[in-house]
Amino acid sequence: MGMLPVIVDAMGGDNAPGDIVAGALEAAERGIPVALVGHPDELGDTGPLEVFPAFEVISMAEEPGRAVRTKKDSSIVRAAELVRDGHGSAMVSAGNTGAVAAAALLRMRRISGVSRPAIATTLPVPGGRPRVLLDSGAMADCQPEWLHAYARLGSTFARVRYGIDRPTVGLMSIGEEPEKGNQLVKDTHGLLAADPSIDFVGNIEGRDVLSGPADVVVTDGFTGNVVLKTLEGTVSFLVQQIIGALTAPGAGDAGTTALGLLAPLAAEMDPDAIGGAMLLGVNGVCIIGHGSSGPTAIANAVSVAHDMVEGRLVSHLAAAMSA
Amino acid sequence: MGMLPVIVDAMGGDNAPGDIVAGALEAAERGIPVALVGHPDELGDTGPLEVFPAFEVISMAEEPGRAVRTKKDSSIVRAAELVRDGHGSAMVSAGNTGAVAAAALLRMRRISGVSRPAIATTLPVPGGRPRVLLDSGAMADCQPEWLHAYARLGSTFARVRYGIDRPTVGLMSIGEEPEKGNQLVKDTHGLLAADPSIDFVGNIEGRDVLSGPADVVVTDGFTGNVVLKTLEGTVSFLVQQIIGALTAPGAGDAGTTALGLLAPLAAEMDPDAIGGAMLLGVNGVCIIGHGSSGPTAIANAVSVAHDMVEGRLVSHLAAAMSA
Repeated sequence: MGMLPVIVDAMGGDNAPGDIVAGALEAAERGIPVALVGHPDELGDTGPLEVFPAFEVISMAEEPGRAVRTKKDSSIVRAAELVRDGHGSAMVSAGNTGAVAAAALLRMRRISGVSRPAIATTLPVPGGRPRVLLDSGAMADCQPEWLHAYARLGSTFARVRYGIDRPTVGLMSIGEEPEKGNQLVKDTHGLLAADPSIDFVGNIEGRDVLSGPADVVVTDGFTGNVVLKTLEGTVSFLVQQIIGALTAPGAGDAGTTALGLLAPLAAEMDPDAIGGAMLLGVNGVCIIGHGSSGPTAIANAVSVAHDMVEGRLVSHLAAAMSA
Repeated sequence: MGMLPVIVDAMGGDNAPGDIVAGALEAAERGIPVALVGHPDELGDTGPLEVFPAFEVISMAEEPGRAVRTKKDSSIVRAAELVRDGHGSAMVSAGNTGAVAAAALLRMRRISGVSRPAIATTLPVPGGRPRVLLDSGAMADCQPEWLHAYARLGSTFARVRYGIDRPTVGLMSIGEEPEKGNQLVKDTHGLLAADPSIDFVGNIEGRDVLSGPADVVVTDGFTGNVVLKTLEGTVSFLVQQIIGALTAPGAGDAGTTALGLLAPLAAEMDPDAIGGAMLLGVNGVCIIGHGSSGPTAIANAVSVAHDMVEGRLVSHLAAAMSA
């Protein structure tokens, strides 16, 4: 018997269902078992892919908790159920982030020892190892014990996903000294420092996210989301300014040549290559794609989901939480 | 009678006292009344500048509250006293940020209606209006009422400093909807929305800091400091990567030409041109320079301090707080 398919939420994301179906087909062409969930009449040509029906859709702007409770026949809720019930190996959705997290939590349940799942986002670092930032938005208000769990989850994920033998863990703060930070950070610092199962390097600052000593950056979901979006916004702003300067009248051929020299850098920082963010702490592999995911981003997310199933990510996470 | 001098802490900053004294002399050459405070024997050639003696130094790493209480003859504490006692019009220090804020608070006292002062940092935006971010690090744990005061203080500062007639104010969050955010943001949103004295544009996200609708970004000191340093770190990382790509073997003359095309952009984003961060909410003009401030950064900070005294910033802030 072949491996169970990765379940793709065909209705989730700004470009659903067209780009999502295209991405699933691209993944299938790479030889990965994949199936769709969504409204069968709205998906267009799905080729050889199995389609599990779901007749409701949770929109990007809906309040997550209520949407998941009331729309039990939505593609997001059905995707999580299909994984729970053994019809799929993992789920991928580019839909409403909070709803995906809530559905996965409610249907797949938590790994023992985890109070709240966290969203782990990979930050691509040109010429260096990728960084894992968590929580990047699942829970805005956090407890020290939750951040402690994030350190173990993130550390295990960095090991399984990126082959980093003993990932270093940093706690996001506003000064390197243990007594610097807000109350949450001060209360968390000691928990991380006392845990021999992680390689804690202490507090790090915003300027260390891309270039500092930590493979894994632990923070609450509010701060993590602000960091992620500030980083994305700054890169995007600078890229626009640079393109403007190099294509201005007077920049001439040198500008065009320079844009070509910078293209590899842009490609290395392209979030589409990452394959989405990983929801860590639930009993299953769940990948949350960017709302703007196109076909390649979806195909990459499916590929990562498949790898994480084969790599037995969830078993490793459970082992880390019971250590 | 001439205007009172701006008091410069000669002992504060990574490059003190040499670069600080040089910066004060540069400001004096621009015609701005300026005086130094510090250990008279350690300042070298201070030219025509008056030197107020202070025989203790608070280092960059000292715990701020304790340092200010115990080192009453430090240059930072003396600088704040000199302003309070009418010997100076304003103070500038590139020393221990927390100590400068604490000394200014203790010696100058608060503006009526302000519970906690905030550090307002200006973010340069090439080709656009500068943004004011506060609090960027004075208080890590904040109350909704403090953030409400920051909105009025920041708005008034943007008007007096940058001539923005009615600055727009955004609240840093992780979604535009009023119900998105952590508890602090949710509790603050309504206070800002109900205040007719500010032009509140609602929640903004990290990606809006440089390019969104808000002239003034209000947040707690933990988040603000993380945003500021993430932004600085991302710019610095990208600049290094770009220089690397454009000076690599094979980049040739086009790379060199392109670096020249990008130089004006780098100059527009240079934090030294900003003149330091402003401590808002105390009864006096107090500028906190970057620890790495060189002579030009100090001279610019003195110049801004002088402008803010002439522009009666503190009176405008007091009026805004009593509205």
